[in-house]
Formats: sequence, structure tokens, C-alpha cells
Amino acid sequence: MAEEREQGGRRQGTLVIIGGHEERDPKGPRKILREVARRIHGGKLVLATVASHKPEGYYDDYDKAFADLELGGLVELYVEDRAEAGDREKLEVIDDAAGIFFSGGDQLRITSQIGDTGIEAKVRALYERGGVIAGTSAGASAMSDTMLVRGTSSETHRIGDLHMAPGLGLIRDVIIDQHFAERGRFGRLLGAVAHNPRVLGLGIDEDTAAVVEGDEFTVIGSGAVYVVDGEHCSHSNVAEAQPERVLSMHDVRVHVLAAGDRFDLAKREPTPSKR
Amino acid sequence: MAEEREQGGRRQGTLVIIGGHEERDPKGPRKILREVARRIHGGKLVLATVASHKPEGYYDDYDKAFADLELGGLVELYVEDRAEAGDREKLEVIDDAAGIFFSGGDQLRITSQIGDTGIEAKVRALYERGGVIAGTSAGASAMSDTMLVRGTSSETHRIGDLHMAPGLGLIRDVIIDQHFAERGRFGRLLGAVAHNPRVLGLGIDEDTAAVVEGDEFTVIGSGAVYVVDGEHCSHSNVAEAQPERVLSMHDVRVHVLAAGDRFDLAKREPTPSKR
Repeated sequence: MAEEREQGGRRQGTLVIIGGHEERDPKGPRKILREVARRIHGGKLVLATVASHKPEGYYDDYDKAFADLELGGLVELYVEDRAEAGDREKLEVIDDAAGIFFSGGDQLRITSQIGDTGIEAKVRALYERGGVIAGTSAGASAMSDTMLVRGTSSETHRIGDLHMAPGLGLIRDVIIDQHFAERGRFGRLLGAVAHNPRVLGLGIDEDTAAVVEGDEFTVIGSGAVYVVDGEHCSHSNVAEAQPERVLSMHDVRVHVLAAGDRFDLAKREPTPSKR
Repeated sequence: MAEEREQGGRRQGTLVIIGGHEERDPKGPRKILREVARRIHGGKLVLATVASHKPEGYYDDYDKAFADLELGGLVELYVEDRAEAGDREKLEVIDDAAGIFFSGGDQLRITSQIGDTGIEAKVRALYERGGVIAGTSAGASAMSDTMLVRGTSSETHRIGDLHMAPGLGLIRDVIIDQHFAERGRFGRLLGAVAHNPRVLGLGIDEDTAAVVEGDEFTVIGSGAVYVVDGEHCSHSNVAEAQPERVLSMHDVRVHVLAAGDRFDLAKREPTPSKR
């Protein structure tokens, strides 16, 4: 069984989990988009704008940003409502793609529109055949088994103030938050981890990504990735019945990872950048 | 020597380190101001507004807030410039006080105006005879040996982006940050601790205080106190020569403490609230 799982792991592709606002100036360095393109190897990339209620402009923006990055085409996939998520022409868009990129918006739009549809199955198949699944902001949050949906930023975290929902499940035992330093979300990510410390918290700054392959991820981009590990947490009060209470959580292990740092998700251990 | 230090510790008073914006509605619960007043035992409290360039209105505000809290008087102490910090009538204000409360503003105003003056000596003497030293926002930051002065909030922390200065030294081996969750300051507090992990980071939310007696503090108020312990930090890049690099710091221990939680500064161990 362990062996089977390991083989399953080896067959799988790459996740590029982006904290939002990745730099995409057609004349800029575009470190993250460049890395996505590099891993596509000249193949076709699908831009899934389903997280947005108003996807107008997203395609043009990304099309310009990717223009000189040697993709074998960028194709938009949008689903106005759930009924469309089984349409044959929508599904076929993914069949010959080398990767898919989920843009920002609302993570609940992604899961409520494509969860348990043909599109979700196609995305999973793409991942299993070694494709690249990238997601920024809402597209990042949606990747985990259980995803963070809402919770106040930039204020004291209250134990009842966190909304989670089932995500796409492309990465297990992890919960992802984005726009992390920019929106002061440390408290809410700690709160999420306190709910079940089996889950590792990943807080990703803007213009920063965790590139996951197998059990390891590497950090790229201009910000940091924060890892919140509650394994040795000795006390937390999240199970108390008063939602207005302030989070109390003792003995949490935290890592701040910059570009080039790597992290082993199975061993829960960081490795510094070589430079 | 250890014994001497311990005895010295026993003689000392109480620090009330407040993260800013403590609730002071004359009809509100005023948990923090009430605790300050309770510890003054009907004595005189000095309101030191020296952190502010424009102290007008501070006294009236606090006078109303403390009105029914049974102080034996509230007296303002302001120092326009350093030359005044040796004036006899200014010094005498502190002689019969039971406590002093540093209001907000700029922590550099506090240290540059009163550092190494008669007022600083009087504050230290008040603390050593068992008095209460309270400080909010800038008044909180100034209490430590080395204090945080500036550093960007709500963005990725860069290793060169932190300004520290010598503080009043009322509490050793600690560095304090305030408005903590509200201004997304986790990154910069980690950065400060990375500079020398001997120093414990205390990040205090608004309307929240750490009440320090001897080696222990207790949390009061409506937010949380974050403790950043770098003792077991296995890697950091703060000594690298490129100030624009993003902080990388591995294996940091973090505690989030809510009202009633206690923390032993010597053992670096939290104790949960009894309720």
C-alpha cells in the first residue's frame, strides 16, 4: 500500500501555489509565470478564470504576460454556472493541455462550480499524468483538501471567526492562505491549524509561490512562505464553545522560507537555500 | 550573583505593556486601565505624554477614562525638549507617585528626550521601589533594552528593513512590538528576533497588555500576545549583506496567548488560563 502510494506520488505533476499578485509586467522578470511556462515545456496552458464573477480582462492580461514565454498557446476556460461544467467542448480544452492556471477571485466559486464535475476529473487527470496545476490567490486556496474561505485579517483572531470548506484535494494535509504578510493573516492561519494540527499551514506572500513536487516544495518569487506546524502544540482553546474568545495556542513551530528554501512536507523539515 | 539578581528582581515593581488603543470609554469596561488603577492602590499616577509631539488632549482623555477608577490623582508629565528633563519640578512629580503611564507617539521621542536624564533615573527608582510602569504603543516599545523603532508592516519582511535603538531597559532580553495583529507585524518581529535569538519577541495586539511581575507575565484585554522564541532557530539569513533579501528563518517556536494565559520569561514556557 505504501509502495502503491509512492508510485502514485511519482506519477503526479507539479503544483505552483501562488500567494496572489504575481508580477506580470510583460517587460518585468515575471519569475513565477516564467517558472510555470518553463515547466509546461512548450505545451498548452489553460487559464481557468472560474473563480471570478467577472472574468473579463483576465485572459488579455495573462496573454500579454505570457507572450514571450514560449507557451504552446493559452486558452481560457470559464464556467458561468455549474451546468456548463460538463460541456464537451469545455472538457476537451483540458485534454491536450500541459497545465492549468487558476486565476484569482473567490475560492468558493471554483469548488461550487467545478467540484464533482467533469472539469474537476479532467484537472485531476492532468495532474496525475504529470501536468502543472498553478493557482493564484483563490486559485491557491482551492488546492487543498480543506480550504480556508474567510476569516478576518489584520485583527485579533477569534476562535469562531474562520470559515473552511472542502477544496479540490490536490494536496493533502495542508491548508493554504494567500496575500499573507500583506493582509496580516498569521492569526487566522494559526487558528486554522489549531482546528486539526495534522494539517500544516502554508501562508504565501504576494508574488511568491510554493512549487510542490512529490513531498517537497521550493519557494520562488519576491516574498516569503510561512509554514505553521502545530504537531507539538501543547494547548489550544479552539474547541471551546465561545466563538468570541481569542485564540490561545501554545508551542507552535514556524518557519519563514525565502526564495530557494525548500521544505519536506512528509518530514516537516526545511532546508536553506544553497546560496 | 544569581541570588543578588533574584533579590533585585523581587524588589521591583510591575510593568503593564500595552499594545496600543486600550479601550478608555468612561462607560466601558476599561479592563487595562482598571488593572493599572487597581495596582496603584489609590496612589498618584503620572501620565507621561513625552512620546507625543502634540500632547494636547491626552491628559483630558485619560483623566476622563480614569475618573471613577479610584486613583489618588493623575498628573501630566511632558518634556518639550531634553533640557527640561532635569527640571526640579518635573522630577518631583515622580517622587510620590505610585505609577507612571507612558502614552503613545514615537518611542524615539521617549528615549531621546529622557534617556540618561533625571527623569529616567526617577522612573527606574519608582520601578525599583515596587511601582507600576505602564506604557501603550510607543510607551510599550520603549520598555525593553533594545527597542523596535521602525520596520514595514503588512508586507514581506526584508532583512535590512528594521530599525532598532537602545530603549529604557526596564525589561531585559525581550523586544516588544505593538498594534500587532492589526498592522500585520509578525514578519518584522521575527526579523528582530533573528538578529539575536537571546531576545524573546513579544507582539501585543491593541487593547491587550502583558502584565509583568518578576519573571512572569499575564495577558489581559481583548486581544492576544504573541511570543516569538528563536532559541532553537536552526537557520537565519539576517547576517547576509543584501538588505533587500527576504527573511528566511527556520524552527521558531511561537505561542499565542489570550487573556488569562501566563508566560514564564525565564523558562520560556506558557501556562494556559485556568478557565
